[in-house]
Amino acid sequence: SRSIDLAVIPGDGIGREVVAEGLKVLSAVLPQDVKLETKEYDFGARRYHATGETLTDADLEALKQHDAILLGAIGDPSVPSGVLERGFLLKLRFAFDHHVNLRPSKLLPGVATPLAGQPEIDFVVVREGTEGPYTGNGGTIRKGTPHEVATEVSVNTAYGVERVVRDAFARAQARPRKKLALIHKNNVLTFAGHLWTDVFNRVAAEHPEVTTEYMHVDAATIYLVTQPERFDVIVTDNLFGDIVTDLAAAVSGGIGVAASGNINPSGEFPSMFEPVHGSAPDIAGRGKADPTATVLSVALLLRHLGLDAEAARIEDTVAADLGERVGKPARSTSEIGDALAVRVAG
Amino acid sequence: SRSIDLAVIPGDGIGREVVAEGLKVLSAVLPQDVKLETKEYDFGARRYHATGETLTDADLEALKQHDAILLGAIGDPSVPSGVLERGFLLKLRFAFDHHVNLRPSKLLPGVATPLAGQPEIDFVVVREGTEGPYTGNGGTIRKGTPHEVATEVSVNTAYGVERVVRDAFARAQARPRKKLALIHKNNVLTFAGHLWTDVFNRVAAEHPEVTTEYMHVDAATIYLVTQPERFDVIVTDNLFGDIVTDLAAAVSGGIGVAASGNINPSGEFPSMFEPVHGSAPDIAGRGKADPTATVLSVALLLRHLGLDAEAARIEDTVAADLGERVGKPARSTSEIGDALAVRVAG
Ligand SMILES: CC(C)[C@H](C(=O)O)[C@@H](O)C(=O)O
Ligand SMILES: CC(C)[C@H](C(=O)O)[C@@H](O)C(=O)O
Repeated sequence: SRSIDLAVIPGDGIGREVVAEGLKVLSAVLPQDVKLETKEYDFGARRYHATGETLTDADLEALKQHDAILLGAIGDPSVPSGVLERGFLLKLRFAFDHHVNLRPSKLLPGVATPLAGQPEIDFVVVREGTEGPYTGNGGTIRKGTPHEVATEVSVNTAYGVERVVRDAFARAQARPRKKLALIHKNNVLTFAGHLWTDVFNRVAAEHPEVTTEYMHVDAATIYLVTQPERFDVIVTDNLFGDIVTDLAAAVSGGIGVAASGNINPSGEFPSMFEPVHGSAPDIAGRGKADPTATVLSVALLLRHLGLDAEAARIEDTVAADLGERVGKPARSTSEIGDALAVRVAG
Repeated sequence: SRSIDLAVIPGDGIGREVVAEGLKVLSAVLPQDVKLETKEYDFGARRYHATGETLTDADLEALKQHDAILLGAIGDPSVPSGVLERGFLLKLRFAFDHHVNLRPSKLLPGVATPLAGQPEIDFVVVREGTEGPYTGNGGTIRKGTPHEVATEVSVNTAYGVERVVRDAFARAQARPRKKLALIHKNNVLTFAGHLWTDVFNRVAAEHPEVTTEYMHVDAATIYLVTQPERFDVIVTDNLFGDIVTDLAAAVSGGIGVAASGNINPSGEFPSMFEPVHGSAPDIAGRGKADPTATVLSVALLLRHLGLDAEAARIEDTVAADLGERVGKPARSTSEIGDALAVRVAG
C-alpha cells in the first residue's frame, strides 16, 4: 500500500475555497490502497500581517518533508505588491528548484473561448522557473528623486537553460506531433537570446524526430490568437512564460481552468501544484470561484507522483463536466467540486 | 507655402513595396501648396553585406537634417538575428531619442478579427522607446561552455519614465473616455515596477479627470482578448510594449494594418514612422504585402507634422477601403495603394 503526504497551502482570497474542492476530488479519485495524509500550512497575507513573516527557513524545512505541495493562491491588496510574490511564491519556487514550470493548455469541447471558430488547442508550455528576470537581481539608486535609476537583471545560465530545454524536448518527443517551439526575443535580448538559441539548437541535434521552430515573443502572441493549433510544446524563459501562459489560458477556456505544476524533476525537493489564477479578492468567500483549475492541478500532481490512471480520470471527468456546462445556470465552487468528486469516484 | 523634407528608408523584404505605396498616398493627399521632397537611404541587409555597416555617425548626421523618416522594414534571414535590429533600428530609436513609441489599435468596421463577437477596439499604446531591457546592457561570460552566464539589464530612470508617462496622460486627457492603464509586472520586477508605479501615481494626481488603472502584463494579455474594449490609452515599458502591441495588432485587424510612430516630441530629432510588421521575406517581391499599415503610419507622420486634416483623410480612406474588402478577391500591394491614392485625392 502507498501513501501520499501532501502539504496544503490554501493561501489568500479564493485559495481556500478552491483548494477544498481540489482535496475533495483528490480523496474521491484515490484507490483504497493509497493513503492520503495532508498537513495545512497558513501562509499568505494573514500570517504576514500577524508575524511579518512570509516563508522562514523552518517553514522550508517543514515543507521539504512532504511528497508534494498543493497551493491555492497567494496575494492580497492589504499587502504591498511584490511582498508575498517575492517573499513567498518565488522564494519557494527558487528554494525548491522548481525549474520546470509546466502549464498545459487544452481547449475542451463545449468550452467557451474568446476566439472565433473554436480552434483546436492542445499544447503545453514548459516555462523556466528559477532564472531570467525573476531572480531579484537589480536595484535602485536615488529612490524617490528625479534622478532615480532602477535596474532589473535577467540571469540566464547554460546549466539552467539546458535542463529545461532537455525537459521540453523529452516532452515533445513523447507527444504524437513531436513539435517544439522556442519563444524568446533573441533579436533584442541578444546575450540571453543567443544562449537560449545555442542551447536549443544543440539539444535539437540530439532529437532529429522533433520538429522545431523559433519565434519572437511578440510574434508568438499573434500566433496564439490566430493559429493556436500550431503549437504542441513550447519552451521559454521565466518572464515570457508568465506572459504567454496567461494568454494561452485566456484562449483555451480562461484562467478558471488553467493548471500548473512547479516541478523539481529530480525529486530532491517536493514539487508544487497550483492554479494559474491568483487569489481574486474581489470574489473571495462568495462561492463564485471555479475550482476546476485547482482540480486539474491535482491531476498534474498525481501524474508527477506516478498515479497516471487517476490523473487521467480527473482530466476526463473535468472534460465531461465542462462539456455539459453550456446553457446551464452557473454553479457554486462547492457544487462544481461535489459534481466532479461524485463523477470521478463513480 | 510649406514643404516636407522626408527621409525614406525602404529597407528589406516587403519594406520597399509598402513604402512605395505609402509615398503614393502621401503625394496624393498633400495640398498643392505643400511641397514634398524625399531622399531615399539604402539601409538594411544589402548595405550590411556590401559594407559591414548598419548605421554610421555620418548616416545619423544626414538623417538628422530631415523633417521626418518613413521606414518600411529592416531584417533578413541572411543576417544573424540582432545585427540589424540592434545595429540599425534600435540604434536609430536611441540616437534620435524616440522615447514615445506610439501604436494605435482600432478595429474598423468590416475588418476581420480572430476574436468572436466583433468587439469595439479603439485604444492607443504609448510604449517607452529608449530604456528597459532594450538598452543593450548585459553580457556573457564563459560563452559556449557549460558554465556560460548571460545577463540582460533593464535600465529605468525617473527622467525616462516620467516623460513618457506625462505624454500618455496628456493623450488620455485629450480623448473622450480619458482612461489610462499602466502595464508592468511590479509584483516581480519590484525595482523597475516601483519606479514606474510611483511616477505614474504622482503624475496621476495632477490629472484628476483621467481614470487610471494598473495591470500586470500577464493579466493585460487576458484582457486584450477578453475585454479589449476596456482600453483607451495604455502606457508601458519598452519590452512589455513590444509584446502587447503585437497582440493588440492581432486582435484589431492584424499586423497588415498596424501603424507606429517613433516620436521625439521635442522635435530635437526627426521622428520615424513605420508599420509594426517586419520585412516578411517569405512574401517579399510578390506584391502580396498589405501596404495599409505603412499608409496609416504616413497618417501618423502627417499628424506629427501638424497636418491633421490630411492625416484624418487618410484614416477615413483606409477605413472605407477596409470596410469594402469583405468577400472581394485579394488585391496586390500596388492595387491597394492605387485605390487608396485615388480615393484620398478625390
Ligand atoms: C504571482 C506571480 C509572482 C506569478 C508569476 O509571475 O510567476 C504568477 O503570475 C504566475 O504566473 O504564477
Ligand atoms: C524588430 C524589433 C527590434 C522591434 C522591437 O522589438 O521593438 C519590433 O518588434 C517592433 O516592435 O518594432
